[in-house]
Amino acid sequence: MVRILNRRGAIMRAAVLMETNKPLEIKEVHLLNPKENEVLVKIGATGVCHSDLNAIEDPTTPTPTILGHEGAGIVVAVGSSVKTVKVGDKVALSWVPYCGVCEFCLDGTVNLCESAFGPMFDGTLLDGTSRLHINGETIYHNSLLSTFAEYAVVPEMSCVKLPDGMPMAQAALIGCGVATGYGAAVKAAGVTPGSTVAVFGIGGVGINAIQGAKIAGASKIIACDIKESNLELAKQFGATHTVNTSIPDSFEQIKGLTNGLGVHYSIDCTGNTRATETAWHSTRKGGTIVIVGAFNPNQTLNLPAGGFHRVGKTIKGSFYGDIQPLKDFPVIAQLYLDGKLKLDELILKTIKLDDINIAIDSFHNHSCSNVGRTVVTFD
Amino acid sequence: MVRILNRRGAIMRAAVLMETNKPLEIKEVHLLNPKENEVLVKIGATGVCHSDLNAIEDPTTPTPTILGHEGAGIVVAVGSSVKTVKVGDKVALSWVPYCGVCEFCLDGTVNLCESAFGPMFDGTLLDGTSRLHINGETIYHNSLLSTFAEYAVVPEMSCVKLPDGMPMAQAALIGCGVATGYGAAVKAAGVTPGSTVAVFGIGGVGINAIQGAKIAGASKIIACDIKESNLELAKQFGATHTVNTSIPDSFEQIKGLTNGLGVHYSIDCTGNTRATETAWHSTRKGGTIVIVGAFNPNQTLNLPAGGFHRVGKTIKGSFYGDIQPLKDFPVIAQLYLDGKLKLDELILKTIKLDDINIAIDSFHNHSCSNVGRTVVTFD
Repeated sequence: MVRILNRRGAIMRAAVLMETNKPLEIKEVHLLNPKENEVLVKIGATGVCHSDLNAIEDPTTPTPTILGHEGAGIVVAVGSSVKTVKVGDKVALSWVPYCGVCEFCLDGTVNLCESAFGPMFDGTLLDGTSRLHINGETIYHNSLLSTFAEYAVVPEMSCVKLPDGMPMAQAALIGCGVATGYGAAVKAAGVTPGSTVAVFGIGGVGINAIQGAKIAGASKIIACDIKESNLELAKQFGATHTVNTSIPDSFEQIKGLTNGLGVHYSIDCTGNTRATETAWHSTRKGGTIVIVGAFNPNQTLNLPAGGFHRVGKTIKGSFYGDIQPLKDFPVIAQLYLDGKLKLDELILKTIKLDDINIAIDSFHNHSCSNVGRTVVTFD
Repeated sequence: MVRILNRRGAIMRAAVLMETNKPLEIKEVHLLNPKENEVLVKIGATGVCHSDLNAIEDPTTPTPTILGHEGAGIVVAVGSSVKTVKVGDKVALSWVPYCGVCEFCLDGTVNLCESAFGPMFDGTLLDGTSRLHINGETIYHNSLLSTFAEYAVVPEMSCVKLPDGMPMAQAALIGCGVATGYGAAVKAAGVTPGSTVAVFGIGGVGINAIQGAKIAGASKIIACDIKESNLELAKQFGATHTVNTSIPDSFEQIKGLTNGLGVHYSIDCTGNTRATETAWHSTRKGGTIVIVGAFNPNQTLNLPAGGFHRVGKTIKGSFYGDIQPLKDFPVIAQLYLDGKLKLDELILKTIKLDDINIAIDSFHNHSCSNVGRTVVTFD
């Protein structure tokens, strides 16, 4: 089906968003060869994320485009300057590539590197151009990945080699909600053994924040959500207690579970400022509130100022869970292989690329929880 | 002048606030002997802080009381269980005593220990009683210290032994604004060598945050205040740049001084939420804003929620600059003795106890900067 065209690239099948608010269309797309700092990956599996639906509905998404930003595959070709992966490597993909030399990268905060921001919004790779065309018409990239396709050309720093034995569908999940949630607990909050943790918003990120808190040795992990079904699910992933935050003053319940003091760490995955305010009140003196959810751009976060200094709390925004992909993806994969992190249970079903609109529609009609994933697999 | 009465304590001279909004009165006060976990200190020097004026004007201050919460002296007697100081030791006093065994103390956040909160508001020592009387009438303690007196009985954990050679007047300043400002930069923010720092509000705390940032090796220290005279003073204590924050969008100036990115650390000593909002905008992605100033109890801190997670900033409230007195006071004293921390320059003048109302009045009539201190010395 795929024809590697040597000097001119490949023809492959891909799910293309021709214009926003339309179904994806399976088309033959011309993929140019990777440039010197790029990698050609044969996609093995790709998760369908709620953010894909957001992109479909967002009128600012550059179209036509190939969506898909959580995926895994096998390296097929590498550019001349690529050092960290080689042909034949199994890799997970990250939608936060980085330059390695800016002030943010040198501080270890590669997740804050700005090199990918422009290309991310423009729908290109790092050099501002696309490798995707149909009959000469530019097809835009998404998140510098575009994994709803048989192949992808991606920046080297979007590829992370995984341990041998990592199955493809599970590997595909690492780079988005798994990394962000795990990282929010382990890296951004820095959950310590014996500590108490509340996770607000049990979706694709929150469920993995719960897993991260469990791996880090938290003694109590309190899942907080307004949907009872999500709270029940959270227990399967490590939550020791649940609190339905639709009840007024629900923070009192959380304090009641923690000697009246509140939790050491709150992890807010909701993107809802009211939940953040509940998280603030649920956190003990000297505790930390990590905000990993994306708020509405025009919202304001209102916090009680009186006594702010006296309670010594920390509020920390975290992008991508403070993940350093090259360092953290292999750790996450090994935790799965060691039976310490659940990924199988996050896969609701596997489908073929031709059926991808069914996965998209499942977000629309709420037949799909935000926690689990439909994963597209390729032969 | 002072008569040690053995079993019944001592008679001493002290400046007593008989009722709020009145001048202090020099009176003979009966001081009971220390209990088992308390220490009798002969006061050598005590600073007059703007917070003393606040207490004088605050109708909720228990009266009659002896104010004064920054002081130093010589240990004269110790209770039977006292371990950390002995008779003859020179000590600086802390107004944040702690228990050493609660969850906050065990986490190293002794500044958040709650053992002193009740007594602090009630005007007693830790056991809920006073050691101060005039003719049988209870005189209340202030901040568990009451240093506007020749002697004080204080909790053991309010006393910290200082290095030999530390002069008394300078030692007296350590326990309040010096520790808080130094700690805000060195401990709460964790300023690192080469980093950039903005300090908002150049008063008794802010000037020492500047000193702390300098000691920690910051490459740029930007003093921010609405008064030009304070900005000029800040340069003498280590500020490399100044920004008058009364100018609209002054954060743009701060970003202009830091490659357009903003500072790594902002330290807000103002207690003014508008300054905090300026500090937020002045701080780079991944940076930290430490709030050490006390806001008005009914104020709300309003921060932009859009993109909060994406910029990865940390906002951290800090009480008492995250200081651990037993560990940090000797470090601060040694920094002074080594010529690395200015304390002489913080002493505007020294006076005798009989003249203490002049120091109080100087706050009223603004003849005194909030940066420097009038220090009462005892023979």
